[in-house]
Amino acid sequence: MAVRDSDPTGLHRVLDDAVVLPQAAQRLDTRRDLLPDEVRIRVQRLNLDAASYRQLERTHTGPDGTVDTDAIRAAVLEIVASRGKMQNPETGSGGMLVGTVEEVGPESPLGLAVGDRVATLVSLTLTPLVIEDGLAGWDGAGEQVPCDGYAVLFGRSIVAVLPDDLDPALSLSVMDVCGAPALTARVVTGYDAPTVAVIGGGGKSGSLSLAAARAAGAGRTIGVVPHEREAELLRRAALADEVVVADARHPVGLRDAVAAAGGPADVTVVCVDVPGCEGGAILATAERGTVVFFSMATSFSAAALGAEGLAADVTMLVGNGYVPGHAAYALELLRAEPGVRRLFEGRLAAEVDA
Amino acid sequence: MAVRDSDPTGLHRVLDDAVVLPQAAQRLDTRRDLLPDEVRIRVQRLNLDAASYRQLERTHTGPDGTVDTDAIRAAVLEIVASRGKMQNPETGSGGMLVGTVEEVGPESPLGLAVGDRVATLVSLTLTPLVIEDGLAGWDGAGEQVPCDGYAVLFGRSIVAVLPDDLDPALSLSVMDVCGAPALTARVVTGYDAPTVAVIGGGGKSGSLSLAAARAAGAGRTIGVVPHEREAELLRRAALADEVVVADARHPVGLRDAVAAAGGPADVTVVCVDVPGCEGGAILATAERGTVVFFSMATSFSAAALGAEGLAADVTMLVGNGYVPGHAAYALELLRAEPGVRRLFEGRLAAEVDA
Repeated sequence: MAVRDSDPTGLHRVLDDAVVLPQAAQRLDTRRDLLPDEVRIRVQRLNLDAASYRQLERTHTGPDGTVDTDAIRAAVLEIVASRGKMQNPETGSGGMLVGTVEEVGPESPLGLAVGDRVATLVSLTLTPLVIEDGLAGWDGAGEQVPCDGYAVLFGRSIVAVLPDDLDPALSLSVMDVCGAPALTARVVTGYDAPTVAVIGGGGKSGSLSLAAARAAGAGRTIGVVPHEREAELLRRAALADEVVVADARHPVGLRDAVAAAGGPADVTVVCVDVPGCEGGAILATAERGTVVFFSMATSFSAAALGAEGLAADVTMLVGNGYVPGHAAYALELLRAEPGVRRLFEGRLAAEVDA
Repeated sequence: MAVRDSDPTGLHRVLDDAVVLPQAAQRLDTRRDLLPDEVRIRVQRLNLDAASYRQLERTHTGPDGTVDTDAIRAAVLEIVASRGKMQNPETGSGGMLVGTVEEVGPESPLGLAVGDRVATLVSLTLTPLVIEDGLAGWDGAGEQVPCDGYAVLFGRSIVAVLPDDLDPALSLSVMDVCGAPALTARVVTGYDAPTVAVIGGGGKSGSLSLAAARAAGAGRTIGVVPHEREAELLRRAALADEVVVADARHPVGLRDAVAAAGGPADVTVVCVDVPGCEGGAILATAERGTVVFFSMATSFSAAALGAEGLAADVTMLVGNGYVPGHAAYALELLRAEPGVRRLFEGRLAAEVDA
């Protein structure tokens, strides 16, 4: 039985015996009725987290390489039915959803109106969800899941209204990584015309971070990419003053590449999802500089011990995916920077082709 | 064959084929001769990292519970002989050393003179080390290892001269955690008379961080401890305006305990080495506040996803163990605060008793 006093974190919908937050919970209460600060969404689509979908795909691939997509669909239905949320028990990850606001509690602080087309920017891992159509419209292939059902948002949930002037797929692709440019901009404004290096500058969060750094007053921007093909794409996007090719896992190589491009950097932003980039990012950064780690592959101890071992007086930030106004800011960057938009549209086209 | 051009990181002493930093290296060059920016230390004592010693102890405990201390000694000798440094291959960790400066290269930036009694504050995992006495003076029991041999420091190594007015064991105990108070002080000065909560306020890094917060201008300090016995010790030390008992692994309980003591905190410092404290630390912190994670048990993804899931606009810092002047600052706090000194001396006495 759930606690009935509303809590902005959604604590009141946790059905576990222990007092844990919704993300850590085994099972959430999915009742339709709203508490005064909640919002109910009519769900149209789930975007499963890539790591989660890959795990399901691996599990349901036969010895001959055939993927049993019916089994994948059944697995998603079973997870949501038993947990009251889409959280893959193996990967712990979820995804996001798109839908339309169906009902708004009188005390909701989210500023939504019935009929708004929205995307949730918090993880499905903490969002009460009921699937009502058995996922009849999904063939089980791919992370995009057409779905009819409902979800519940809490007082502290993060949600963004989808803009009318952009393709929803494009908006979602931007919102997925919108924490990085917002935090980059905030850090850059703390320095006077700093040199900013973005490791993985050709990717989604990387290209937005480069645009944000320039907009926030960077004196010089350096985009670091892993190979020449991506360097060419980033050069054509014209988002960085310098584009260099370096392997971010090789600390000395990365340090020297950034130095040759006008470094060390006052602000280094790590946007590549490969392990082992902590040492290089620290070495590429000037004394009293800041490293912002956005990669989920970051090792806390490698960063902490690495900086200590190198006697590096750098500030190291855990990239918080939430900064107020982050979605609107990232969409603004996309509209203002044709280079960003081309990179994102190219990526979406490649996904459709694939 | 090592690169002979000196690099302040010690890269020139890495014997691996790949270009990696000394900490990541399989094997270091331990030649006695110094490059111009190096320093050689005559080693008197190694302090093995606790996690490393416990691993060795577990490995060499027989089915009847008897610890084979000769085997532990042999294992340490074998690691140092084969790797040229004391880095436990299982835990990846090392420790620190105490010794006397034997020779100073003409271009060393460390400011040392021959005869200085010093402690290295960087890990043994990156320090070239030769043991010359076969550890004849060590019985293999415990982390304190009397040792005759030499070690080499690089241009960027961190080393502190042991002060004359304090027991060396006390100084070492302080230096071991001196990054925490220095960074806490720096963060606190960025706010105006902030409320500071230290999770694990009764421990070594925690008590120093409380003292640092007050010295740096905190308006209110809150020490959070796991049980009443430690609360009583911390109250007697008079380092915190409020002392509260809470389990840091329970986010809602921690949030409510800190709130009841005058929170939420503008600055939350996490000094407890148990996993699962990220959510509570985030929830206990005010909007636009800062969480400093000093615990090596911190999970990067739990912190990043936790803050996003809670829509918490908090700055999260990876606790860098190096801040210039950190050792001197921590020793100053110990001298100035009788409460800190009593806690440290009590802890040392307990270790001797144990």
